[in-house]
Amino acid sequence: MFKKILLLALILVPSLALAEDAPPTIASNADAIALVQEHANYLWTLIAAALVFFMQAGFAMVESGFTRAKSAVNIMMKNLMDFSMGSIFFWAIGFGLMFGTTNTGWFGTTDFFLSGWTPDGDPWILAFWMFQCVFAATAATIVSGAVAERVKFNGYLIYSAVLCAFIYPIFGSWAWGSLLNGNGWLEGLGFIDFAGSTVVHSIGGWAALAGAMVLGPRIGKYGPKGEVRAIPGHNIPMAAIGVFILWLGWFGFNPGSTTTADKSIAMIFVNTNLSAAAGAVAAMFTSWFIFKKPDIGMSLNGALAGLVGITAGCANVSPSSSLVIGLISGVLVVLSVMLIDRVHIDDPVGAVSVHGVCGAWGTLAAGLFNMEGVTAKIITTQVIGIGAAFIWSFGCAYILFKLIHLTIGLRISEEEELIGVDIAEHGAHAYNDFVTK
Amino acid sequence: MFKKILLLALILVPSLALAEDAPPTIASNADAIALVQEHANYLWTLIAAALVFFMQAGFAMVESGFTRAKSAVNIMMKNLMDFSMGSIFFWAIGFGLMFGTTNTGWFGTTDFFLSGWTPDGDPWILAFWMFQCVFAATAATIVSGAVAERVKFNGYLIYSAVLCAFIYPIFGSWAWGSLLNGNGWLEGLGFIDFAGSTVVHSIGGWAALAGAMVLGPRIGKYGPKGEVRAIPGHNIPMAAIGVFILWLGWFGFNPGSTTTADKSIAMIFVNTNLSAAAGAVAAMFTSWFIFKKPDIGMSLNGALAGLVGITAGCANVSPSSSLVIGLISGVLVVLSVMLIDRVHIDDPVGAVSVHGVCGAWGTLAAGLFNMEGVTAKIITTQVIGIGAAFIWSFGCAYILFKLIHLTIGLRISEEEELIGVDIAEHGAHAYNDFVTK
Amino acid sequence: MFKKILLLALILVPSLALAEDAPPTIASNADAIALVQEHANYLWTLIAAALVFFMQAGFAMVESGFTRAKSAVNIMMKNLMDFSMGSIFFWAIGFGLMFGTTNTGWFGTTDFFLSGWTPDGDPWILAFWMFQCVFAATAATIVSGAVAERVKFNGYLIYSAVLCAFIYPIFGSWAWGSLLNGNGWLEGLGFIDFAGSTVVHSIGGWAALAGAMVLGPRIGKYGPKGEVRAIPGHNIPMAAIGVFILWLGWFGFNPGSTTTADKSIAMIFVNTNLSAAAGAVAAMFTSWFIFKKPDIGMSLNGALAGLVGITAGCANVSPSSSLVIGLISGVLVVLSVMLIDRVHIDDPVGAVSVHGVCGAWGTLAAGLFNMEGVTAKIITTQVIGIGAAFIWSFGCAYILFKLIHLTIGLRISEEEELIGVDIAEHGAHAYNDFVTK
Repeated sequence: MFKKILLLALILVPSLALAEDAPPTIASNADAIALVQEHANYLWTLIAAALVFFMQAGFAMVESGFTRAKSAVNIMMKNLMDFSMGSIFFWAIGFGLMFGTTNTGWFGTTDFFLSGWTPDGDPWILAFWMFQCVFAATAATIVSGAVAERVKFNGYLIYSAVLCAFIYPIFGSWAWGSLLNGNGWLEGLGFIDFAGSTVVHSIGGWAALAGAMVLGPRIGKYGPKGEVRAIPGHNIPMAAIGVFILWLGWFGFNPGSTTTADKSIAMIFVNTNLSAAAGAVAAMFTSWFIFKKPDIGMSLNGALAGLVGITAGCANVSPSSSLVIGLISGVLVVLSVMLIDRVHIDDPVGAVSVHGVCGAWGTLAAGLFNMEGVTAKIITTQVIGIGAAFIWSFGCAYILFKLIHLTIGLRISEEEELIGVDIAEHGAHAYNDFVTK
Repeated sequence: MFKKILLLALILVPSLALAEDAPPTIASNADAIALVQEHANYLWTLIAAALVFFMQAGFAMVESGFTRAKSAVNIMMKNLMDFSMGSIFFWAIGFGLMFGTTNTGWFGTTDFFLSGWTPDGDPWILAFWMFQCVFAATAATIVSGAVAERVKFNGYLIYSAVLCAFIYPIFGSWAWGSLLNGNGWLEGLGFIDFAGSTVVHSIGGWAALAGAMVLGPRIGKYGPKGEVRAIPGHNIPMAAIGVFILWLGWFGFNPGSTTTADKSIAMIFVNTNLSAAAGAVAAMFTSWFIFKKPDIGMSLNGALAGLVGITAGCANVSPSSSLVIGLISGVLVVLSVMLIDRVHIDDPVGAVSVHGVCGAWGTLAAGLFNMEGVTAKIITTQVIGIGAAFIWSFGCAYILFKLIHLTIGLRISEEEELIGVDIAEHGAHAYNDFVTK
Repeated sequence: MFKKILLLALILVPSLALAEDAPPTIASNADAIALVQEHANYLWTLIAAALVFFMQAGFAMVESGFTRAKSAVNIMMKNLMDFSMGSIFFWAIGFGLMFGTTNTGWFGTTDFFLSGWTPDGDPWILAFWMFQCVFAATAATIVSGAVAERVKFNGYLIYSAVLCAFIYPIFGSWAWGSLLNGNGWLEGLGFIDFAGSTVVHSIGGWAALAGAMVLGPRIGKYGPKGEVRAIPGHNIPMAAIGVFILWLGWFGFNPGSTTTADKSIAMIFVNTNLSAAAGAVAAMFTSWFIFKKPDIGMSLNGALAGLVGITAGCANVSPSSSLVIGLISGVLVVLSVMLIDRVHIDDPVGAVSVHGVCGAWGTLAAGLFNMEGVTAKIITTQVIGIGAAFIWSFGCAYILFKLIHLTIGLRISEEEELIGVDIAEHGAHAYNDFVTK
């Protein structure tokens, strides 16, 4: 009746190079078992990739919700385009630099344009590319929030292409290249960054810092006497739902980094969840203590801080440690947001604090709370990795943003900023039927 | 070329305690097959947990969409925090009470702080915890809607901690404890509640009823002559998307409750979908008949009613029965919402009707439509379970809310309520750039 | 300690008809391997179905975001109900017509009301139904956008029931019937449409064209001298998030169409993503060239165009070809939207261009870029399929909409349209607390 069983036979059999009527043997069974496990690995890696992809929606909502109504169209365009352009540039260039064969340990030189794949070859490279592609785009999109409401759209497109093609993958090759064909110098030292507190989040966060510094603050953000003025977000529920979506996506981001469907993903799920929960709670109480009210923006960023904080160590620290890492992340993000504001760097959504600062903390914590014990060598290596990420990402991004500034211009005009970047750059309002202030 | 195959060998081999070059045997193959199936079970349980987690976003959107703009920040905070605090309290206390070893059948006494897990032990307890944690938080968040727009934030935090630490897990141990180390009295009677129409939804729904009763109605909800006044929601599309998200999450909630990746999940998916669809259609036509227009709020709640209604019986009733269960749920929810309004209990989102009433109906229906036949004993047991849930949850929650009321206070002041709970409790507007009424 | 292992044994053993203590044999191992693979297939098919279900939320958000605030309630109702009614009608009638046994090759005549399933039979039919049900509802919901803001609600309900019960499944049986018990004439010719560029998207798109033509344009859409007036959408971020959700859902739609968890899904994921990315980029640059600004609406529709365009060929074209297919889709959708507007067919969201036109293009491209070579026969067959879909869907839908028009009426009155379909049909505002224009 059902053609399913036939189909199943067709899947299992040719891959194992068995004639259809050859009886199974111990060896053919062992091969078939390995194949079924491989199928599960593909499934998990690709479902996880889909979850990480969905984080793009979360980032778009958080960034848009925490900024003004007059910038919402631009934010959606930036998020759509850093993923779309990012996918294409990571396909053409980035993936090869990150995971191609390398003799130097500094970048790969093969596998551009997915040339490592052939129609009759092993398709694992495609599953792996898909997972890594959504990671690259995550790094790119982190910057979007820090430069929101004032960056020129074409400048942003150039930046996000360069980040996905060069900045992110080159650092990535240092830490993760050996996951495919590479062999990075940082992983050679024993650097622990399981899912990318540094590789993804700090790289994005420090580039965000560079962008915010080169651009300068939004008009009106700091008063004539240097006082900090709040520019409140226009849609808090949207930002909150964005955080829930990011939390969901992190269940792909962290446990998916196994790229295998095995029992180890259970602890990674639990660690991810406990750290996020602890981050939200700690940030809420910290804000409550400082501002006398439990602050929604800080609490939401606290959850994200907890998620970023556990990303490096999610596979090598215990659930209890995850709770502690999350608690510290939640306190840290509040203090960092306040500090960055005090030095007059205008980061509208707190991207530098969440991704840069808590990414660095999480990477350190992955060493400090290592279940198999902590040594001076581990801590040193973690610090080297943290430092290398800062120098590389902040340095490259600073130069890149300055170059864009000096050539096509990085920032919209004052007049355009007052009208809003949506009208200036896209000729559109986000909320046509609503009366806005 | 790819290191995947090596990695695969590393996964399969050590778990099976085989030397790497030992040839496979029939016995080692049988062990490996069981292991691959176990991996699939982990995968499914954890993906399902992620889907159930996402229901938090759905609840936040439904509750916020159905209430006023001046309460949206508070609702996001409550939903973020009942999940975050809930995760931590369920980790510390609730899970042990629910699934720990018990001699009494009334609550467990081991496994607090996930102490049943050791780094070199079986990680199933972590996967299981993750799935159960998102269930506990679902029960907590159900209450949020019924107490919306007037509850004090700190009172709500206390309530949600107590529910996740005590109220929910103790009842849960009666019905589900044996899923791990427990042995509950209610499951001993043969109580059928596969995914928690009673354990999760009625427990949440009856606690919601207690909260709404202790708090009293929102200002202006009932006129001086007792007439019912509609307080319409501020964002219907948000509520609708929330319902779609909840429906999606239920594809984790119900079939995920197998915690095994086998063929039985197919029927559970189909049953879940048919009941939800039937609930939406039935509620729409019922509202059309009563109000002369097809009502959006009722239709959305009808879908949720169908989902709650099939939750108990999703694994032991047929697809056709699911359709009938959903149809009845859809009618029931409309009538219940009207009745609860008529007795002047102000439940802004219909949480008591959706989760309490339809949870009870679904639990009864799981007996009535049991595919293997229905007996007086089954029905009696279902009724005992339904009654026990009401007494336990309504009783505990009523006492708890009264205690909060008598100590730190449960309700914001009249003045605060008129300004809105967002400003009063969090010093924030949800929609800064919009002109609101 | 854990009851998991026991449970596992219970799953594997009875299915294999082994006594619990019978030692494994080579044959029993081979059977167990096939069973574990089958479990993975169920898992993947059902998770993919959940992702495709979630596209309903995406469609609701895109349609609502691109139209006016005064129609948002109605759009949510239409989307909730075309899925809910669609599920029930596809269960009762459509599935049997599409996949039931057929002697003619034109439609099936068995399996109505899921009668092919029995409690002790193979549950694959349930998993397969679930996946096909969400496909049918996708076809239905495509039309919703094209008829938005002016269609009568009861007329829409009738249309969506007929589409899910007859129009979609009958065409589906021609192309896909043999996936279960059927045997369609079009698949017999060798028609390539892996995941439904034609079967789902063009069928929906051409029905949308019929609906838009029978209804006529919204009041004010075309000026007295025939000039085209923009009616801008009311919530661009909502539309954008809807597109992200659709993109996510497509990771179920395309690779899920394997209904097997094997390695082939990797390429389908990559192809889907590259085409979507290329579509967004191409549409952005096309709109930038034509309108001098990068247009958000066109860019979002470009991503959808890329997704629709790759749906037919996702399993038989290479990643590089997918990029090309997506680029062409992105250009095509912009030109098509402009052309359809110029001939005064008012399609508020561009559904005809995205789903009809790019569905046809994608189906042709699946032949043109076929990895195993292209022949005149392949192209001819693809063109036959494209043409058959147009004739069948446009023809049936045109007659159906005309019949509704002539009987109960298809369009709300002019007065109702000016007030808004939300108030007219549902007695509700979407945004009660906001001041709208």
